[in-house]
Amino acid sequence: MKAKLERKDCLYPMLTTLVGANINGKPNYAPIAFVGIMDFTNISAAINHKHYTNTGIKESKTFSVNIPSLEMVKIVDYCGLVSGRDVDKSKLFKTFYGILETAPMIEECPINMECRLVQVLNFPRHDVFIGEVVEAYGDDQYLTEGTVDLSKVQPILFSFHNKDYWKLDTSFAKAWDIGKQL
Amino acid sequence: MKAKLERKDCLYPMLTTLVGANINGKPNYAPIAFVGIMDFTNISAAINHKHYTNTGIKESKTFSVNIPSLEMVKIVDYCGLVSGRDVDKSKLFKTFYGILETAPMIEECPINMECRLVQVLNFPRHDVFIGEVVEAYGDDQYLTEGTVDLSKVQPILFSFHNKDYWKLDTSFAKAWDIGKQL
Repeated sequence: MKAKLERKDCLYPMLTTLVGANINGKPNYAPIAFVGIMDFTNISAAINHKHYTNTGIKESKTFSVNIPSLEMVKIVDYCGLVSGRDVDKSKLFKTFYGILETAPMIEECPINMECRLVQVLNFPRHDVFIGEVVEAYGDDQYLTEGTVDLSKVQPILFSFHNKDYWKLDTSFAKAWDIGKQL
Repeated sequence: MKAKLERKDCLYPMLTTLVGANINGKPNYAPIAFVGIMDFTNISAAINHKHYTNTGIKESKTFSVNIPSLEMVKIVDYCGLVSGRDVDKSKLFKTFYGILETAPMIEECPINMECRLVQVLNFPRHDVFIGEVVEAYGDDQYLTEGTVDLSKVQPILFSFHNKDYWKLDTSFAKAWDIGKQL
């Protein structure tokens, strides 16, 4: 029997990322799970207006989306407990830059995407930053035959239902394939 | 050592959904993992221009986002192998409607969101439909104390890296909490 849910946002679990931006000349990182895929080269990250990160993205017109591994969960969560206004988060990670030169990325994260800002959608409480991924980076240890291996990445999945982090289990079927059995 | 990745879209795994729309008077469903969270009430679904679903969403200005359980993986994948132009997908599921009356939802899916179309972003190969979730539905068997329980839902996660479906494992930490240990 279907019942109406109190929480209307049910698109969980969602991938937990660390969104990076330079603000006042320093890298800053915010844990963001309000992310999305627009197409093969554009992604979105929705960040509450009150966050420190937003100014930096708007100024530099660039940002990064970094995918942390579950062993990084404490520091990822910590980044959400403190604001870049009060704590210098540039000291928490090793930062590297790519071709955009102004999108700080986190060396310790298995996967990094550097994005050129293409559009900002203004929602009542959130800026939705849409970015073109101009380059993506991965560490050898998280790849299998040159392709990202999620069983090695061990991403952190987030749910707002109970405000918790979830692990990814195994791959169990091939897409555009298992349906052929019907 | 960081290496540039061939695939630039790395925002995986992403939740696999079935997007529903009425087209020519019949419900149609397409498996879509190019989804995103805009804020607490708005979500996005990016659908390739060539899909049958797009016309229906644009006409009715409504759509649904349904979250299937992994036991439904064959039929979910099958929906991506055939077009609503050729196969009447309204026969594959039990459809129900909510307050919008024109956003068909799937009874068999643990979680359903009915959406009012608020904006369409036009990317070269995809329409990104942004919808306000006006109501969300869940079956009792997938809830614990009235809240969605992802360990009961068992959502299907998708990755384009190897074009496969992944299972969710367990919750392992509380958000806005575990970081306090640092």
